[in-house]
Amino acid sequence: MRYFPFSKEGRDEEVEINVASEQREVREEVEEEWQRLKQNMSKIKHKIAIMSGKGGVGKSTVTVNLAMAFAMQGYVDRVGILDADFHGPSIPKMLGLKGYGFQVLGPGVIIPAIGPLGIKVVSMDFLLPSDETPVIWRGPLKMRAIKHFLVDITWGELDFLFIDLPPGTGDEPLSVVQLIPDMDGIIIVTIPSDVSQIVVRKAVTFAKELNIPVIGVIENMSGFVCPKCGARVDIFKAGGGRKMAEDLGVPFLGSIPIDPQICADSDEGVPFIVRHRDSPASKAFMEIVEKIEKYLEERGKVEKCMRMY
Amino acid sequence: MRYFPFSKEGRDEEVEINVASEQREVREEVEEEWQRLKQNMSKIKHKIAIMSGKGGVGKSTVTVNLAMAFAMQGYVDRVGILDADFHGPSIPKMLGLKGYGFQVLGPGVIIPAIGPLGIKVVSMDFLLPSDETPVIWRGPLKMRAIKHFLVDITWGELDFLFIDLPPGTGDEPLSVVQLIPDMDGIIIVTIPSDVSQIVVRKAVTFAKELNIPVIGVIENMSGFVCPKCGARVDIFKAGGGRKMAEDLGVPFLGSIPIDPQICADSDEGVPFIVRHRDSPASKAFMEIVEKIEKYLEERGKVEKCMRMY
Repeated sequence: MRYFPFSKEGRDEEVEINVASEQREVREEVEEEWQRLKQNMSKIKHKIAIMSGKGGVGKSTVTVNLAMAFAMQGYVDRVGILDADFHGPSIPKMLGLKGYGFQVLGPGVIIPAIGPLGIKVVSMDFLLPSDETPVIWRGPLKMRAIKHFLVDITWGELDFLFIDLPPGTGDEPLSVVQLIPDMDGIIIVTIPSDVSQIVVRKAVTFAKELNIPVIGVIENMSGFVCPKCGARVDIFKAGGGRKMAEDLGVPFLGSIPIDPQICADSDEGVPFIVRHRDSPASKAFMEIVEKIEKYLEERGKVEKCMRMY
Repeated sequence: MRYFPFSKEGRDEEVEINVASEQREVREEVEEEWQRLKQNMSKIKHKIAIMSGKGGVGKSTVTVNLAMAFAMQGYVDRVGILDADFHGPSIPKMLGLKGYGFQVLGPGVIIPAIGPLGIKVVSMDFLLPSDETPVIWRGPLKMRAIKHFLVDITWGELDFLFIDLPPGTGDEPLSVVQLIPDMDGIIIVTIPSDVSQIVVRKAVTFAKELNIPVIGVIENMSGFVCPKCGARVDIFKAGGGRKMAEDLGVPFLGSIPIDPQICADSDEGVPFIVRHRDSPASKAFMEIVEKIEKYLEERGKVEKCMRMY
């Protein structure tokens, strides 16, 4: 800011002018950012968030397998994942992208990391020097980072963007919902236990209060079949996901059984629907994918109708 | 704020005085709050936070069972739990305290809910109208709420306060650490999978960067023994917790096996070390408790020595 130290009146006036022009600059910058956000997001056909309210129920596993399932069904190079979990980003590890990162193609052109079948991945993990590095951030910084990921990264033309939300109903999900108001919907993941459901129910209310459609509930870690003797053991109980969906009047998408291979595949960076295509878990998952496709089709038809009238 | 609309000079002066006195009032209020916090916390001998960085690894289960173990070993009425997970408070459910709440004993005297063996519990859950209600809060509000729980609730004289932190290394853990700088240490909970560990390692760094001692790492959901045939299946792999502790140079406290009873007991509101005292999980847990006791004893001795010199 320029000012004249020797003339009181002159200085005050100058300062005033400068403050006004600075405020205008800030406003213009914010406006421009919103325009870029809108432009960026308008190139992505479907945006779906995966949420649970509670941690450790398999949100990230569901996200990578969903992305993979769509990429395999004719959407090569047309699927993206935004890993919005800053404190525990695990998408890169699950897709074998550890050590990869964003690519800078030119001034201001940053593109996501590219995973199998051209899946585009944006994650805080790519910006951390090591696995031990925590992101000790309060909310406002996280809001800025999410905005940056959506505005300043060149996602390009996509058919699907899956957003992996961290546990809870705090800063990150709120920011995502405010930045992408035209989201297709939210998929809720739970495990069958009562304790989990009490928490996950809150995610359904969160979506309802913010007017985002709930695509449905997935029950993960549902029942376990002993690989030795075939006995079924419900480690985290079973059926809770369906009951919750019925209670809250939202669709139930299906149950995915516990399978030690799912954990091993995630650790090795290969989605289980690729590595173990014929397992009961993969079959259950593909049925869920079909239901999501149907939801998007129906929604598309309704929107088309609404545009006609 | 009072001002004189008809005298320009008088108004400015008055406003200035009032602003200054308001600032002083705010400063005094903050100072008084800190004094009350210090006084409240000085009555609690040991403060231990349970953290994981990642959700769904069993932090809350470890917290209620730790509290119960200490209460059973001679500390009836001397143990408290602060459930610092606003988005997914599950401590009340796990202790059979659903539907209970804080008690108001007089003007300004609010006491925690009282659980089995006199365990004092403070949780956001007690303030929510229903299980479906989400806490859609950004960080600053959560900071205020944690402060309120520590300052305005009459915890009384306690030997142990266990603090169940939500997933991540964001607002809540930061606030707790800033509000209770004399914490005895942090217990880190993980499951054995690589994906979980990548996230949980960050919690160890978090503690180190903020200069809080790490009491040790607990590996939860470690291995599963089929109740029918006795076959051992490592659903989330095994041994990862010990490896992580060794890598990071922090103590390893022990492994707790997966046991369907743990989930069922939590859902029924009874800690598993009470309901299934002779199970392998309970035995493993009690060994961990012993190690924590030893840690506190050693720390007490060191502090005594330091006070002598």
